[in-house]
Amino acid sequence: MSFKNIMIAQSGGPSSAINASLAGVISAGMKSPHIQQIYGAANGIDGVLNNRIIDIQAQIRCEEDLALLKLTPAMALGSCRIKLPDYHQDSSLYETIENTLERYNIGCFFYLGGNDSMDTASKLASYFTMRGKDISVIGVPKTIDNDLACTDHTPGFGSAAKYIAGTVKSIARDCEVYNTPSVTLVEIMGRNAGWLTASSVLARLDGDAAPQLIYLCELPFNNDNFIRDVTVAVRSYRNVVVTVSEGLRYADGSYVGSDFKSGGQDVFGHQDLSGVGTYLKALVSARIGCKIRSVELNVPQRCASFSASLTDINESFAIGEEAVACALAGNTGKMMVFERLSDHPYKVKISDVDVSLAANKVKPFPVEWISENSADIRPEGVSYLAPLIQGEPSVPYQNGIPVHFRFKREFVGKER
Amino acid sequence: MSFKNIMIAQSGGPSSAINASLAGVISAGMKSPHIQQIYGAANGIDGVLNNRIIDIQAQIRCEEDLALLKLTPAMALGSCRIKLPDYHQDSSLYETIENTLERYNIGCFFYLGGNDSMDTASKLASYFTMRGKDISVIGVPKTIDNDLACTDHTPGFGSAAKYIAGTVKSIARDCEVYNTPSVTLVEIMGRNAGWLTASSVLARLDGDAAPQLIYLCELPFNNDNFIRDVTVAVRSYRNVVVTVSEGLRYADGSYVGSDFKSGGQDVFGHQDLSGVGTYLKALVSARIGCKIRSVELNVPQRCASFSASLTDINESFAIGEEAVACALAGNTGKMMVFERLSDHPYKVKISDVDVSLAANKVKPFPVEWISENSADIRPEGVSYLAPLIQGEPSVPYQNGIPVHFRFKREFVGKER
Repeated sequence: MSFKNIMIAQSGGPSSAINASLAGVISAGMKSPHIQQIYGAANGIDGVLNNRIIDIQAQIRCEEDLALLKLTPAMALGSCRIKLPDYHQDSSLYETIENTLERYNIGCFFYLGGNDSMDTASKLASYFTMRGKDISVIGVPKTIDNDLACTDHTPGFGSAAKYIAGTVKSIARDCEVYNTPSVTLVEIMGRNAGWLTASSVLARLDGDAAPQLIYLCELPFNNDNFIRDVTVAVRSYRNVVVTVSEGLRYADGSYVGSDFKSGGQDVFGHQDLSGVGTYLKALVSARIGCKIRSVELNVPQRCASFSASLTDINESFAIGEEAVACALAGNTGKMMVFERLSDHPYKVKISDVDVSLAANKVKPFPVEWISENSADIRPEGVSYLAPLIQGEPSVPYQNGIPVHFRFKREFVGKER
Repeated sequence: MSFKNIMIAQSGGPSSAINASLAGVISAGMKSPHIQQIYGAANGIDGVLNNRIIDIQAQIRCEEDLALLKLTPAMALGSCRIKLPDYHQDSSLYETIENTLERYNIGCFFYLGGNDSMDTASKLASYFTMRGKDISVIGVPKTIDNDLACTDHTPGFGSAAKYIAGTVKSIARDCEVYNTPSVTLVEIMGRNAGWLTASSVLARLDGDAAPQLIYLCELPFNNDNFIRDVTVAVRSYRNVVVTVSEGLRYADGSYVGSDFKSGGQDVFGHQDLSGVGTYLKALVSARIGCKIRSVELNVPQRCASFSASLTDINESFAIGEEAVACALAGNTGKMMVFERLSDHPYKVKISDVDVSLAANKVKPFPVEWISENSADIRPEGVSYLAPLIQGEPSVPYQNGIPVHFRFKREFVGKER
């Protein structure tokens, strides 16, 4: 197909691999004879709306820049949390977006993000189709939570999982130094899906016993069962590591420790959570009484790219490249996906699905991969998870700290 | 001098480098023709008291084991928190220790730990001298806090500092993705000394602006000045990272946010702290009202050996080796120290001091290295800190997670 310029934007929460996907789109864009200019919108669709457009080729000048970008955490182009309205009801934002994209002669708009971002991609694609515009929209998935529908796994998940597994293993070493019983609760990100918490099981791949207990938000939590399991584990292991999803709920749907919560909401209606670990710490303290501490892994889970998974980084780059091929083949309204061909040896293939199928959905951790005691991961889950954390990228360091690539906020047009 | 067997034990809080020092003692012990058996006591002096003695040569069987041990976090031999009484008042524990050491024909006892452990080493050395025993005691320093007296810096500090600098830099990437003002508080370990918090300045070595504000516990904290500085920083930088010591206090000596504290104490009388970040988050929220979050770096600071400093690991190994040389030269009651010869190029020399000079003391971060605004580190401080985080060890990975060395708890005698 005849092609022109492309624009890329990032949205949703940061991860260690979303810049690898950005690098993949840029790399394929630079190599394609059908693509002239590569633009980036600063802060997602907000940058398109406000004409904050970066000339990417002016800033990515060599392979080294691209290599640095690939291992830079968070979003080099910035993010936003804008939800587009239904264009049948209000098309004003759509018109502004269309104007901007036409002004830059954009043939394809790539949107890199999670399920909220896929909602945006889906709406834009369908709007442009309805308007008969020759602007394709391709979604490139990203979320450390791994809860996107239609794809075997998401870019960014493997690096977060590797950070969690390695850190939980290190915490296990830290826990076992004293000769007295202790419980260490590790609170792991995951509002509605326990994939990241489940990945803590990988800390045991090398023969360790920790984490001895793993509680995912997919199953209703029960204080009494928890206390019973922890008591038994302390008796067997002395120093026990327990990993818990931040989104743990009771059978009635209320969040565990919700009295400890701030109760805020973001614009997508997600409840602002924190403090499951704090609550369970108090519970163990009151009911068991042994030494107890709570560790919230917090944002390093999604930005400590110095412990990224090479598999994740390489796949994230490749899915970015394939997004360009998908657009060049004349597609629109697609989200790129991984299809797993086998666990042993690990083989995946990149393909695409209609982005509308993935938007606004949450893919939970399969309940059938959770052990009968509700506090461990079955071998099928381990077989699924393990390949995603393999390999260590060669992280560029300078002056003892990791080197990051940063775009200068130099815009080609006047900011609106 | 004629020598026989040696025994090693570890004590105090874990770090990423104390096993490197252990590996150094073991390596030098194995190489010396004057040393026959190398024993380890499980859980510090508690293991000596209870006869939990490990035959180290039976478990460290090759260079590979030693290399793994060098990069294993926390304490492979375990730790304890026992404070010996004054032997003039109660010598019963000393007699038990002497019995154990004589039973194993120990010529030198190496104690690896922080200032509390140096107190133990000092008392034991003086007890054996008083008793005319031919058992020397050598202290090998360790603390991520870097607050030991008499040494330029402590083994373990550089790796924690590197983790903090790299993580704060990654958090800065995570913070700047949204186009709205935000403050991210990063709470860093350090009860009585701000060395670790100060090391967050190293996140700027590559030209970054974050952390924009750094508050150490060496200076009295003032809520109003803090709010003023944060307000100005948000205006200038939009996304601001603030690092704070967990031990921040007001001018009257009370801990910042002490109402948020659990108030427990350990056996050394240290107050159990947490929550400075939580308190300051609430303060910023109430007084400035912008987006605010608090991240506690927590135990990964001292156990994430996958981001250790090569300089720290190598120096920690070397100081362990030198401890053996010091003992073989006929010394007792010594603590090994680093003397810095120059910053550029970085040069240190290992020597020793009387362990009594280092025991029970705290070396604060020099107030003259703190900027006039009380919220930054002067170039002299950066010159001191920067060399300590240089270099990245080749971390052994298997199955996607770091490999650790673990001693089996197989004791040569009957546990008491």
